[in-house]
Amino acid sequence: MYIVHVFAHVQPGQVEAFRQATLVNAQASCSSETGVARFDVLQQQDDPTRFVLVEVYLAPEDAARHKDTAHYQTWRDAVAPMMAEPRSSIKYTNVFPDDKGWRQVPFAIREVAPKRRPTRVRVSQPSRS
Amino acid sequence: MYIVHVFAHVQPGQVEAFRQATLVNAQASCSSETGVARFDVLQQQDDPTRFVLVEVYLAPEDAARHKDTAHYQTWRDAVAPMMAEPRSSIKYTNVFPDDKGWRQVPFAIREVAPKRRPTRVRVSQPSRS
Repeated sequence: MYIVHVFAHVQPGQVEAFRQATLVNAQASCSSETGVARFDVLQQQDDPTRFVLVEVYLAPEDAARHKDTAHYQTWRDAVAPMMAEPRSSIKYTNVFPDDKGWRQVPFAIREVAPKRRPTRVRVSQPSRS
Repeated sequence: MYIVHVFAHVQPGQVEAFRQATLVNAQASCSSETGVARFDVLQQQDDPTRFVLVEVYLAPEDAARHKDTAHYQTWRDAVAPMMAEPRSSIKYTNVFPDDKGWRQVPFAIREVAPKRRPTRVRVSQPSRS
């Protein structure tokens, strides 16, 4: 996976506006971009003006495609005046889990089960041998 | 969620040993600790001696319990001489997804549906009311 941690330091008066704009961007990325495995938004506990966007792409090209989307560009323009300093980022690869372990739980799986033939899954656990 | 990013800077000759020891710790944490929603291990692309452990706990008490486990203590002692500098950490809370969106996808969910009555669970989510 191609994992990008984006560090955003927001002006104190803009924290809630940044949260809302970033939430919209994250939701749209997860629901519409097939190359996005995760798009988590985290807020630092001891300094609520600091956020990390944990963006997990299947491949580097998917990160480039993200920047072509309307929701990214809307977000970028909306938050530009909210920043306390320029954003920075660090790129990572996954050690654990392997590439199969990174997909968000598909939204449909997380919905209430349908009345008939409910979606059932086996939650596997390693044996205790 | 109670999310901890642990930053580890490893001596150059210890990178593979650190990877292996940390993989064992992450796998054990995910498979045996009910308070662990995720335990990702990331390696920095432009500096392979730097890692981030992305530890997602249901609550702060679960982070404390993690440190009581044998696998954590084994890992802590094994990697102590591998460090290039003391580890540091930053604590976060989740903006997105909400608390229900953080469980790892159990491996079986991602596999083809089982043929015969395996242990089944419904992955419940609140309705959209």
